[in-house]
Amino acid sequence: MQWVKLLGGLVGAAALLGLGIILGHFAIPKGAEPPAPSVSFAQDLDLEILETVMGQLDASRIRENLRELSREPHLASSPRDEALVQLLLQRWRDPQSGLDSAEASAYEVLLSFPSQEQPNRVAIVGPTGDILFSCRQSEENLTGEQGGPDVVPPYAAYAPSGTPQGLLVYANRGAEEDFKELQTQGIDLNNTIALTRYGGVGRGAKAVNAAKFKVAGVLVYTDPADINDGRSLPNETFPHSWHLPPSGVERGSYYEYFGDPLTPYLPANPSSFRLDPDTVSGFPPIPIQPIGFQDAKVLLCNLQGNSAPDAWQGALGCDYKLGPGFHPDSVFTGSQVNVSVYNRLELRNSSNVLGFIRGAVEPDRYVLYGNHRDSWVHGAVDPSSGTAVLLELSRVLGTLLKKGTWRPRRSVVFASWGAEEFGLIGSTEFTEEFFSKLQERTVAYINVDISVFANATLRAQGTPPVQSVVFSAAKQIPSPGPGSLSIYDNWIRYFNRSSPVYGLVPSLGSLGAGSDYAPFIHFLGISSMDIAYTYDRSKTSARIYPTYHTAFDTFGYVDKFVDPGFRSHQAVAQMAGSVLLRLSDSLFLPLNVSDYTETLQSFLQAAQQYFGALLEQHSISLGPLVTAVEKFEEAAAALSQHISVLQKDTLDPLQVRMLNDQLMLLERTFLNPRAFPEERYYSHVLWAPRTGSVATFPGLANAYFRAMKAGAGSAAWAEVHRQLSIVVAALEGAAATLRPVVNL
Amino acid sequence: MQWVKLLGGLVGAAALLGLGIILGHFAIPKGAEPPAPSVSFAQDLDLEILETVMGQLDASRIRENLRELSREPHLASSPRDEALVQLLLQRWRDPQSGLDSAEASAYEVLLSFPSQEQPNRVAIVGPTGDILFSCRQSEENLTGEQGGPDVVPPYAAYAPSGTPQGLLVYANRGAEEDFKELQTQGIDLNNTIALTRYGGVGRGAKAVNAAKFKVAGVLVYTDPADINDGRSLPNETFPHSWHLPPSGVERGSYYEYFGDPLTPYLPANPSSFRLDPDTVSGFPPIPIQPIGFQDAKVLLCNLQGNSAPDAWQGALGCDYKLGPGFHPDSVFTGSQVNVSVYNRLELRNSSNVLGFIRGAVEPDRYVLYGNHRDSWVHGAVDPSSGTAVLLELSRVLGTLLKKGTWRPRRSVVFASWGAEEFGLIGSTEFTEEFFSKLQERTVAYINVDISVFANATLRAQGTPPVQSVVFSAAKQIPSPGPGSLSIYDNWIRYFNRSSPVYGLVPSLGSLGAGSDYAPFIHFLGISSMDIAYTYDRSKTSARIYPTYHTAFDTFGYVDKFVDPGFRSHQAVAQMAGSVLLRLSDSLFLPLNVSDYTETLQSFLQAAQQYFGALLEQHSISLGPLVTAVEKFEEAAAALSQHISVLQKDTLDPLQVRMLNDQLMLLERTFLNPRAFPEERYYSHVLWAPRTGSVATFPGLANAYFRAMKAGAGSAAWAEVHRQLSIVVAALEGAAATLRPVVNL
Repeated sequence: MQWVKLLGGLVGAAALLGLGIILGHFAIPKGAEPPAPSVSFAQDLDLEILETVMGQLDASRIRENLRELSREPHLASSPRDEALVQLLLQRWRDPQSGLDSAEASAYEVLLSFPSQEQPNRVAIVGPTGDILFSCRQSEENLTGEQGGPDVVPPYAAYAPSGTPQGLLVYANRGAEEDFKELQTQGIDLNNTIALTRYGGVGRGAKAVNAAKFKVAGVLVYTDPADINDGRSLPNETFPHSWHLPPSGVERGSYYEYFGDPLTPYLPANPSSFRLDPDTVSGFPPIPIQPIGFQDAKVLLCNLQGNSAPDAWQGALGCDYKLGPGFHPDSVFTGSQVNVSVYNRLELRNSSNVLGFIRGAVEPDRYVLYGNHRDSWVHGAVDPSSGTAVLLELSRVLGTLLKKGTWRPRRSVVFASWGAEEFGLIGSTEFTEEFFSKLQERTVAYINVDISVFANATLRAQGTPPVQSVVFSAAKQIPSPGPGSLSIYDNWIRYFNRSSPVYGLVPSLGSLGAGSDYAPFIHFLGISSMDIAYTYDRSKTSARIYPTYHTAFDTFGYVDKFVDPGFRSHQAVAQMAGSVLLRLSDSLFLPLNVSDYTETLQSFLQAAQQYFGALLEQHSISLGPLVTAVEKFEEAAAALSQHISVLQKDTLDPLQVRMLNDQLMLLERTFLNPRAFPEERYYSHVLWAPRTGSVATFPGLANAYFRAMKAGAGSAAWAEVHRQLSIVVAALEGAAATLRPVVNL
Repeated sequence: MQWVKLLGGLVGAAALLGLGIILGHFAIPKGAEPPAPSVSFAQDLDLEILETVMGQLDASRIRENLRELSREPHLASSPRDEALVQLLLQRWRDPQSGLDSAEASAYEVLLSFPSQEQPNRVAIVGPTGDILFSCRQSEENLTGEQGGPDVVPPYAAYAPSGTPQGLLVYANRGAEEDFKELQTQGIDLNNTIALTRYGGVGRGAKAVNAAKFKVAGVLVYTDPADINDGRSLPNETFPHSWHLPPSGVERGSYYEYFGDPLTPYLPANPSSFRLDPDTVSGFPPIPIQPIGFQDAKVLLCNLQGNSAPDAWQGALGCDYKLGPGFHPDSVFTGSQVNVSVYNRLELRNSSNVLGFIRGAVEPDRYVLYGNHRDSWVHGAVDPSSGTAVLLELSRVLGTLLKKGTWRPRRSVVFASWGAEEFGLIGSTEFTEEFFSKLQERTVAYINVDISVFANATLRAQGTPPVQSVVFSAAKQIPSPGPGSLSIYDNWIRYFNRSSPVYGLVPSLGSLGAGSDYAPFIHFLGISSMDIAYTYDRSKTSARIYPTYHTAFDTFGYVDKFVDPGFRSHQAVAQMAGSVLLRLSDSLFLPLNVSDYTETLQSFLQAAQQYFGALLEQHSISLGPLVTAVEKFEEAAAALSQHISVLQKDTLDPLQVRMLNDQLMLLERTFLNPRAFPEERYYSHVLWAPRTGSVATFPGLANAYFRAMKAGAGSAAWAEVHRQLSIVVAALEGAAATLRPVVNL
């Protein structure tokens, strides 16, 4: 304890007073608002507060939140969506349990809706023009909740209007190779209608691929094999079980990018420049419409032609044929399928709601926690299960705040995003509007969208620096199921991997673009995570929970089938709350930058193993990448070591701040807005979209596979080398920011 | 003094000791290296230290530095350039007067040199192939310094090799309109050689423009009217005066962009991906070669054809004709001009040298101060006058440092850049290599390239936030001339403007891309400045000092003509030193962000005045821009007000840091790497290159003038609107970062 030596015997009472004076200057803030507890630069995570928060997060309150949130459909920009904006504001402004402040702000964004006057229609049209069969235009009203004017009929958002008609073919999942297979089988796809099932490729990709083969229109349905573990009968499905009823239809956005389609890279303020909707890229090129498997069965089980390959077969109870057209034995022989889509693009106001807690020590460091608010119909699971958790967590923290018991070291920002279902629009516009501010100051973004898919286990996705804080939280929270396991110990039973550093650990997934974390990680380079409870994959092979994006995703569904008792909701609230508090309150940020080393090494090994030989043939050496990974590893390890020494020793507020800046900003160093200009918003050189199955650096992999294609010349291999240099420069630059700050 | 109330009567001796203990933790750094003075978070600019530094900066030592630096030619990557690397390292590692550390690092960059075996040649070739006249291949050895193997012969760096031959035409400055004028006068430019004079447009642009008109080769010379105020006789020029001798030739880079041509956006490490030199854009498309006015006179005064327009006439003592070809009365009648260029591209190692002083309180905040080291020949003015100042300033600061008298609050980094003359290469590669680290942590970049053009007045360029610190320094340093004016009071006599806020003030110039500040301001968004002493413009109309980039830019030239006594050098050292210390040592950063408001308002007014009417016709409203400027103004004023209150009151180290981060990072908020992707490195939405004469937002202006062109359709006007929205978003984002950090 050096200070003892320095002070001992040297300093008299007068000197002590002088020191006190200086200290008074330093440590006692002027004009702090009551009832904030006294501020200390050394304010660290308070384990008692953490325990208090864990104990106060209440399952029954989450249940009540969910009941209210999912009481009515709340499609983006609908009156009920706006009513929920008011609900959030009211909660976050509550004098007893609210936050420091809350506000709503609207963007004017391009959404897509089916016409109310002219409903979309899918029909079988006989040779004489008679309509022989029509698909349902809405889901069956099984529980009284599936009717009413606010239930938006099933549709494919952003699909163009049009009324194509032609012979039906079955095209499996609508992947490019699926259409190729049909061609190979001698089927003329020109002017056909392709029936596809959900899964495999993205929604919009089905129409994009189909159009390449001159298909005129596309239908998409959810096969019971893919969602219901094969069950398809009414008495096997909701409301008798959690399975999807035959009339259920998955809605969704079919737009290829994210963010408001008319204002890429610009906030969608009323005055912002907008693209001409007719020139926007990323919309489906041809009409597409989703239907239920009850109707799909009528279409598919009456097709003629060759049997579809085994992998294309499903659980509709017939042999799937390829078409084109209906079987001569069927009543539909000679008939065509007509797909009439009357969707409209509309500029609508969509609101984000933001709630703030001012940090006591470092108010300019933000921990963001968000979820979207808009649903397709009632959205009890998606997204209200997340919003119910968000409201409970903000209530517990707000109560401590208002009582004066607690104020975080850093600022906390809660967000309720608008129009996520149309393509992460609210969150993306927010990142565009506050790009600089967020990039400078955000510690991390926590996303809890669907909080509970199922009751089995935690599922967390994130970038490597958040692994440690997620693990820390998971180890200290009891698993909601029977038994006395922690969330961590339960998790490791379901998802695990062998880490070279830690041995067997739960497996943290990586972040795609499935929810509002996407603009934060890919566009802003902010360390992000997504937290939920999910399935036992040994018990179901469902693509996702069965009523996803249908009118059957209701409060009763959650209460009865997804999480009776809401213990998994509570567990997610505890997880998210614990992670949030650790990030907002710990003196040293609990972001373990060293955990990036494992990712880099595995990416490097994959590149060496799968690309090395051919790269060498093209005189491209992976040597500089090896060196860059080593430099990163050394710098990260030294920094972690330095911090662990300091944690036992020094409390110099600026030194802590400087180290935390290194930790916070590491993720930013991986951004290169010039690396993939064709990939809108994707600037993170480690997590941009990747083609091919090799889990490695995406720019390198994508360039490699393009160069591999027959006929690719030296320019394609030059691009491989360029992409390699881009990632090497990013890693070297990242390592440079982790070294002691006085080494330039 | 609130702390008195808080402490008075409450705290006994034991409590004081306790406070002392905590203070010991906070304020006494562990493991600090001796002989660092004791650290205090409140460490502020020490005016005594500042005075000491001002007093110790010694004119005669700057003179001796200059003598040594300019003793031999030190072209980039030459042995003498590398010897100067060692000289810098030795100075910065000196035990008595060095810095904390220093290091050199090399990049492998593409330079261009004339062939030694096959010298470039410009000749008049008679009708029978005889050479009737040859231009000098080197400058006349007037002082014994213009000979020797290390004087690189005059050439146009990056001009392609080739031996075009054709009739000579005179094309004024080689602007596009100059060639159009020749066409208008009925001259067939096909396959001609165009003689042009320096000025008007950039070096490379002369060849680019010429090639558009099928010209085969270009000559460029410096007219005595443009550089010597008309004087051209040997006894009127150096060594008899500071004027350019008849054989003097300006060398230079003819590359259109900056940075290593083969590795745009990537550091030029040996393993980096490199473009194929044959595919690089930005090199002159046709051979071009500079010559002296002595030779130009032979060519130009023998031309036939119409007299050139008045504005094209110069001071060679004859009526300038346009050609094509020579006058029938001249001995060259029927002759052509042959331009033989044998330049070679070579990959060379070029070094930067960096010297560090570790900051005592905020080592992770960097004040950068740099100049290039490489010259074309001896480079006494360019750049050694700046390097001589750099070495003197680093000596004085190093001495204080080694004595333990001083250590800056923030880190100071001195830089000696390589290969600036070829296109700011060393500094650009440095910004590419350390992009993230520099962007996160750099407070400002100070550039002192040519420190003294002439003795009359200070000339400073920079972005608005540096105006106040430059003014503060200038007010406290005596002007070097006779009389007792401050540098500020002298400056305002030469360059001034009427500020709506301050009244008459010296005019701070804006930053183009003329020296190494370019990558810092345009690519990284770091507040930058360039400082020099310069001409009395009422006494000379010279484009630049007359021996610029010639073999006559020698120590004797500076000592006798530019700054006898070196008082202007000393003044620049004091200016740069004062600005540096204010930036490195002030508790609150002396960057006045409010000074951006004036710029924004003047840009806005210009846009309204010149573009408003036509924009309205195209339904583009400047209203959102008005609002954005207002928001910026309000936020900046409130922040400045807040800081001035705090300066009298609080010393909370983190609060100071947070405010300083807002000041430091403001410039970064104006960067948008997606705004002008075609303008390499230019991302600053306020200072990117601008076409047209309206001093306003460059993206808006450039798009406007493109849209104005005949035939531009709605897409061009849409781009105007898009550029308007880009700058509005940047200003709104900037304002958001200036607001109190708890307002999101």
